[in-house]
Amino acid sequence: MRRRDVAPPTRARRLWACGGSCGLEPGTWSWARSQRLPALPLRALSTGPPPEEEPEVSVLAAMLPRRPLAWPAWLFRGAPGAAGSWGRPVGPLASRGCCSAPGNPEVPLTRERYPVRRLPFSTVSKQDLAAFERIVPGGVVTDPEALQAPNVDWLRTLRGCSKVLLRPRTSEEVSHILRHCHERNLAVNPQGGNTGMVGGSVPVFDEIILSTARMNRVLSFHSVSGILVCQAGCILEELSRYVEERDFIMPLDLGAKGSCHIGGNVATNAGGLRFLRYGSLHGTVLGLEVVLADGTVLDCLTSLRKDNTGYDLKQLFIGSEGTLGIITAVSILCPPKPRAVNVAFLGCPGFAEVLQTFSTCKGMLGEILSAFEFMDAVCMQLVRRHLHLASPVQESPFYVLIETSGSNAGHDAEKLGRFLEHALGSGLVIDGTMATDQRKVKMLWALRERITEALSRDGYVYKYDLSLPVERLYDIVTDLRARLGPHAKHVVGYGHLGDGNLHLNVTAEAFSPSLLGALEPHVYEWTAGQQGSVSAEHGVGFRKRNVLGYSKPPEALQLMQQLKALLDPKGILNPYKTLPSQA
Amino acid sequence: MRRRDVAPPTRARRLWACGGSCGLEPGTWSWARSQRLPALPLRALSTGPPPEEEPEVSVLAAMLPRRPLAWPAWLFRGAPGAAGSWGRPVGPLASRGCCSAPGNPEVPLTRERYPVRRLPFSTVSKQDLAAFERIVPGGVVTDPEALQAPNVDWLRTLRGCSKVLLRPRTSEEVSHILRHCHERNLAVNPQGGNTGMVGGSVPVFDEIILSTARMNRVLSFHSVSGILVCQAGCILEELSRYVEERDFIMPLDLGAKGSCHIGGNVATNAGGLRFLRYGSLHGTVLGLEVVLADGTVLDCLTSLRKDNTGYDLKQLFIGSEGTLGIITAVSILCPPKPRAVNVAFLGCPGFAEVLQTFSTCKGMLGEILSAFEFMDAVCMQLVRRHLHLASPVQESPFYVLIETSGSNAGHDAEKLGRFLEHALGSGLVIDGTMATDQRKVKMLWALRERITEALSRDGYVYKYDLSLPVERLYDIVTDLRARLGPHAKHVVGYGHLGDGNLHLNVTAEAFSPSLLGALEPHVYEWTAGQQGSVSAEHGVGFRKRNVLGYSKPPEALQLMQQLKALLDPKGILNPYKTLPSQA
Repeated sequence: MRRRDVAPPTRARRLWACGGSCGLEPGTWSWARSQRLPALPLRALSTGPPPEEEPEVSVLAAMLPRRPLAWPAWLFRGAPGAAGSWGRPVGPLASRGCCSAPGNPEVPLTRERYPVRRLPFSTVSKQDLAAFERIVPGGVVTDPEALQAPNVDWLRTLRGCSKVLLRPRTSEEVSHILRHCHERNLAVNPQGGNTGMVGGSVPVFDEIILSTARMNRVLSFHSVSGILVCQAGCILEELSRYVEERDFIMPLDLGAKGSCHIGGNVATNAGGLRFLRYGSLHGTVLGLEVVLADGTVLDCLTSLRKDNTGYDLKQLFIGSEGTLGIITAVSILCPPKPRAVNVAFLGCPGFAEVLQTFSTCKGMLGEILSAFEFMDAVCMQLVRRHLHLASPVQESPFYVLIETSGSNAGHDAEKLGRFLEHALGSGLVIDGTMATDQRKVKMLWALRERITEALSRDGYVYKYDLSLPVERLYDIVTDLRARLGPHAKHVVGYGHLGDGNLHLNVTAEAFSPSLLGALEPHVYEWTAGQQGSVSAEHGVGFRKRNVLGYSKPPEALQLMQQLKALLDPKGILNPYKTLPSQA
Repeated sequence: MRRRDVAPPTRARRLWACGGSCGLEPGTWSWARSQRLPALPLRALSTGPPPEEEPEVSVLAAMLPRRPLAWPAWLFRGAPGAAGSWGRPVGPLASRGCCSAPGNPEVPLTRERYPVRRLPFSTVSKQDLAAFERIVPGGVVTDPEALQAPNVDWLRTLRGCSKVLLRPRTSEEVSHILRHCHERNLAVNPQGGNTGMVGGSVPVFDEIILSTARMNRVLSFHSVSGILVCQAGCILEELSRYVEERDFIMPLDLGAKGSCHIGGNVATNAGGLRFLRYGSLHGTVLGLEVVLADGTVLDCLTSLRKDNTGYDLKQLFIGSEGTLGIITAVSILCPPKPRAVNVAFLGCPGFAEVLQTFSTCKGMLGEILSAFEFMDAVCMQLVRRHLHLASPVQESPFYVLIETSGSNAGHDAEKLGRFLEHALGSGLVIDGTMATDQRKVKMLWALRERITEALSRDGYVYKYDLSLPVERLYDIVTDLRARLGPHAKHVVGYGHLGDGNLHLNVTAEAFSPSLLGALEPHVYEWTAGQQGSVSAEHGVGFRKRNVLGYSKPPEALQLMQQLKALLDPKGILNPYKTLPSQA
């Protein structure tokens, strides 16, 4: 039902807060026409998985199916006992969600599936292992079973055959390792949390895996400036907890936070959920310590907001995916922890309304807007089907998640209330719910953050991560649905609308060269036609290295190759990644 | 008088807005103990320069000199007729303020004052001039008189002897010029607004000056995303005006805005007055077009917020001062124009209180804080003496300028009011004034922005631009006053406290090698001892190239030299700048 048919709202309609006595749980908000509509019955969220049927509609919409929907209830239908179905899964990949059930067939070797040839690196000898054992006593892993997981990427479509994994604790150890590998012409695959989407973090052949997992110490934190200095292997979620206890937050947040390492985040220039507010890591990372290919330690680990003493070398390593050097420590500026966080989850009748909601929201929420995410109806269906998360709002063609973060709860609520009133009154939004309580905020975020996981459970996933002009963002999804027809299981679009970043995903029962042929290079050509980017935030890794030319001119690719040759003349750092394979 | 002796404020004291009827001018705010203090008489700002005496104290402080200062009047003492004395000076250097009166002695040639040897570049021949005339018809300047100004830096302490200035209009022309210069081994000095502080924008010998002045077209502006694409020679203030008419602002602002070019801003990684809020150009610049030393045009001029397709090459050129390539076009993200801007100008009793005011302010103003600047009492005396700008508040050891920018005037005023009430009540602040009206906001900003100009009129200036841990920021000023005694005319400290950025300036009647010897390397060693930066935002240019080692390790300096050799193997781009002179 389109809200456009309904009379515009009047000032008599008010946003009201619920402290618990009204029947809604504390921390949720609800819209109602004050004094005019009777109190609405609440339906508790079922604690088990919902039946396999169409998503439920919101309570008021269900109650009044044939009347104009004057004031849909903004009901948060979460219940305390529902944490199991909303929360994170438990297990080794819990923090990102496990993408494959036990008993899945083994992932094919990358070298067998893809046309790639091993470069003439040395192979690891017994003498090398002995040298590594001297450098990192107790940190040399050669047990084939222990090497299975780090050889396979998170999407389980790439597999290397590395026979040794090293676990240094310090940058000096990394330096000694690289000096040895450089002398011996041994290839090295740096690995953080191994949560990447483009195969940048797993070996292609037998590269030595250099894990940052044991480099997980916070080195300093300045309680006035919020500047955190830590080793590269610190897990993002743990850093978040650390700085939040000190009234700051990390400037980035992403679905993989429970596993990913800050060093990997910086090496891949991770974007994520706070990008809209706090910007790129090129702005928030203040300093890096990097070990170069020959073992040289490059200490640019300053904790200064401004430093114009020569070229800003650290920038070279942000987003270079471990191909120019291995990041061993990071200095990063953390914003103050907002005193109030609100999340609104809204249903929109069309993509035009999503865009209009974004424009309106930017104007009305201004400096407190901290995220503007969107997902289409198919995403919601998959999240429901595979993860048993029910939509908290009426079924809609599109959903939007808006987060505000500010220093004054009252002011923020007032701004958000006015915006929501406007969005509802003008028909931009059909239905919605809002949460201020931290647990419920997380539940709403889970709907958006766990789409990746739901897709992985839907079958083989063809993933595209595009930057596009915002007004054309969804056209490629519609285009592909028509193009692929029944050959695809699902074609979905979601992502960081505020950043012009679309996650375009196509699922199928299994990998199929013909489906791939229908997708590529079409998707890349379409993106290039819009002056978009074929990799917005996921990076290049192994998967995207031969499509850079769709977004970068030959002069840029040539300069990248020259930089690689300058910094890693033997090419031992993360080979077969990031740069196009050379003829 | 320290406010700490006074009882803490109660809620009965309120901040009230003045719409004009209260006797204050519209757009100003005033504190008063509501219903308890009588209305205060107002003193209009005199339209001429103030008499040469101690700065005036605020009205209430003058009325009640012997009583505890319970509620000083927050009076803005500006008057409409005062624009001449507060506003910008008129003339060729108006936008930054002219630092030398007519009749000043000629600036000595750099090559005569400093130990620097010309590198073996070719000299410009008649054939070269003819070739340039073919490339940029009508854009070849060889008139000695017209070449005087572009050969001298803004501080008038460096002078080159270039005999030709080129004024291309397009990147293609720049490309043809550089291709010719590269082939002929001719050195090139890129020049924007020539407002730099470190001699990066003027030739040292006879380098060809390549001016971006005629590359001043806006190429596109996206009204939803706020992404501006323009040529490098656009003047910052003109871009500000352009985007403000479209409800956005530039993410940077600086005193030199009336002259400086956006290309120069990016090339020098300018910081400035909005850095605290909108961060570094490394985050806000989305794309660049750069012409490399051999004339290759590197087109990285994307307008995407996210683009992880390979190494982020544009970062190399941000802050490299034209030594790696010449920036010809810029794509930059402009934040939405705030609907409300408030500026408070406060007097603090000591530097400890300045720091405490900053911490308090960050917590209480949160996301609306857009600038936190400070200046010491001597700065205010010089601004008054040389520019005839009177202090709007009671004489204080330190002054703080706080700017808020937000989307809701009422909310912002409430936040700022609470903060000011707290700051005053707890003795952090002695006296203050506040403005919301744009003209008065500019007047308050002029006090801070025009310090550089006042210093230039005070004599020869030894300038240092340091990043330091905020708690040690002022120690070096105190240290130097004791160290230099009467050998210095004035030692002042001011700057961007919110960014940990101190502008330390020492004035003397004339340049003196002995005073220089007392300052250097002491200032640099002291800074290095604090792990600070010897150039926070001004860059390196000609002046600072041999002190980089105080802030960067040898491995970093070596990599910088390697990058220079890679991108400009003949070293023709802005020679004698940025990198240490090689033995």
